[in-house]
Amino acid sequence: MGLLVRELGEFGLIERLRAIVDRVDARSIVNIGDDAAVVRYDRPVVMTTDALVEGVHFRDDLIDMVSVGYKSLVASLSDVAAMGGQPLHAMVALALPFSEQVERLEAIYEGLADACRQYDVAVVGGDVVSTSGPLVVTVSVTGELLGEHPLLRSGAKVGDLVFVTGDVGGSAAYLHLRNQASSLLLSENDVWILQQKHIRPVPQLMAGRIFAQNAGCTSLNDVSDGLSSELHEIASASGVRLMIEADRIPTLPSVRHYARLAGVDALDFALYGGEDYQLVGTIDRTSAGIFLPLMQAYGVRISLIGQVKRGESGVYLQTNSGLKEIKKKGYDHFVVRDEHA
Amino acid sequence: MGLLVRELGEFGLIERLRAIVDRVDARSIVNIGDDAAVVRYDRPVVMTTDALVEGVHFRDDLIDMVSVGYKSLVASLSDVAAMGGQPLHAMVALALPFSEQVERLEAIYEGLADACRQYDVAVVGGDVVSTSGPLVVTVSVTGELLGEHPLLRSGAKVGDLVFVTGDVGGSAAYLHLRNQASSLLLSENDVWILQQKHIRPVPQLMAGRIFAQNAGCTSLNDVSDGLSSELHEIASASGVRLMIEADRIPTLPSVRHYARLAGVDALDFALYGGEDYQLVGTIDRTSAGIFLPLMQAYGVRISLIGQVKRGESGVYLQTNSGLKEIKKKGYDHFVVRDEHA
Repeated sequence: MGLLVRELGEFGLIERLRAIVDRVDARSIVNIGDDAAVVRYDRPVVMTTDALVEGVHFRDDLIDMVSVGYKSLVASLSDVAAMGGQPLHAMVALALPFSEQVERLEAIYEGLADACRQYDVAVVGGDVVSTSGPLVVTVSVTGELLGEHPLLRSGAKVGDLVFVTGDVGGSAAYLHLRNQASSLLLSENDVWILQQKHIRPVPQLMAGRIFAQNAGCTSLNDVSDGLSSELHEIASASGVRLMIEADRIPTLPSVRHYARLAGVDALDFALYGGEDYQLVGTIDRTSAGIFLPLMQAYGVRISLIGQVKRGESGVYLQTNSGLKEIKKKGYDHFVVRDEHA
Repeated sequence: MGLLVRELGEFGLIERLRAIVDRVDARSIVNIGDDAAVVRYDRPVVMTTDALVEGVHFRDDLIDMVSVGYKSLVASLSDVAAMGGQPLHAMVALALPFSEQVERLEAIYEGLADACRQYDVAVVGGDVVSTSGPLVVTVSVTGELLGEHPLLRSGAKVGDLVFVTGDVGGSAAYLHLRNQASSLLLSENDVWILQQKHIRPVPQLMAGRIFAQNAGCTSLNDVSDGLSSELHEIASASGVRLMIEADRIPTLPSVRHYARLAGVDALDFALYGGEDYQLVGTIDRTSAGIFLPLMQAYGVRISLIGQVKRGESGVYLQTNSGLKEIKKKGYDHFVVRDEHA
């Protein structure tokens, strides 16, 4: 059964978890262990917070706890990247069931520590409390703005080009696969690839940095709730119409292969899935010639998927069967309850 | 019954809550509504996070939701004050039961907004997710360091004097009173005073500022888990022995009166209670002559309650019946479960 948190006690637990994420951070004046952390920043501060709930955002039969820890940091790093910022520090608040096991929490912290090493972030604080409900992990991340101005959702202009980094829909395809009653004839290789998309998403810090330090990115958002929801946020904040070409939305061959086997549309994973942690946004036409080779030089995949048009704010999709308006339909915590649960 | 969150939807709820805490903040470059907030700081950044869980930290038969919101911010402001910092910005993550009512959340946000106006803090971000368990409110606060150095727990030196601001034990006495089956003959006035201590604690920003901007405060901690636990943290971090005089621990007449009626020791509320949000720490002897009149001039009550002695780290209490070592015995979320639940 392993050690229960209640056998170890709050202070014993904090010491164990602290040891896992302990690392030297040149900017920390005060690290974990006092009333608050103190860090040195030279530029405007970017800050974001994200909560993950067991049974809603993750289920232990679908994902291991190390990956939960890893992803809980990535979600916030992705938000900072989407503002044109460099994430630097994290705080972690845990609300733990009375019967929580120490090993599970250590696994979450190992995942957090992995992501911290990978992306050069230090955990400088946190809180541990008890709950009669499921585990809640709330990660807050702060960082520094890289360029002169933050990259907002609201700057898309008529004539701009719409882009997305990497590929989308892989995480949602993996959850769909795991929720299927019958196992499909998908190769082990395809399953592994989809699983990696789900458990080790890559926050687009390099792309965010390139957008922050060169003029011409007119709007930026990260893809946490599905491409459709994020495009709608840009369209609405900028007051423009986005025309997206379905054929240009980048999905992996494994996603398309799985979708064919499952008898569903791969595009639905991309549009209405989530947890891709790619960046989506707009660039002005004259900057495309700068951004595309720069991204290539730095190994960032970027796809131009549409254009910004005049008209009432909305998102339209051009497919082989014609043009249709697409609804927002992102994940709503209190209305739609399917893929994530 | 009122409106349920699921009838309003996630985005509708966020708009309503955002409107309640919306305020102009000169330091915000980006406020609520994009991927992350961006704020301008001129000095080192102080950051802290605190989670409150319904049924553990608050129960709606003991406290109204406006006060829950107010206190959820105060807990973090107190941490920033205890580092010698000025709190400036907050982020709020809510994990909500599926059947949560919009009115309750609006009340929590009204309390948050009250505390924000009172202490000049702006809510610049947040997250709203669902949970199958009870409500969890996680507040993260950032601020700026006021003095040259943060005020740590670890600087107490032999010969220093131990102080505490304000009075302690009132919040715990109120919870004790409310958990009594029989109503005691306590006056309405005393009940009101104890209740105010519980629902409207005052973070010691003025005292923190005075300690930050004058030399001589050698250690500082806020009183969130009872005086004993906080004194132990200072003793342990500084490697010193603290000798406390029981008679000098400041408790309100209403607390002492209630304790007599209830047949308990008022000192227990002060030592093992919690949620006082006062500051406790040490000052060097030569600075006492500076701090005491300064605090008085700025309307801050401060009591000298003991001395720092050589010897193995620990906390000793001098009472009429002699000297005794006192145990840490703060609130442990996973071991002790009485006063707070």
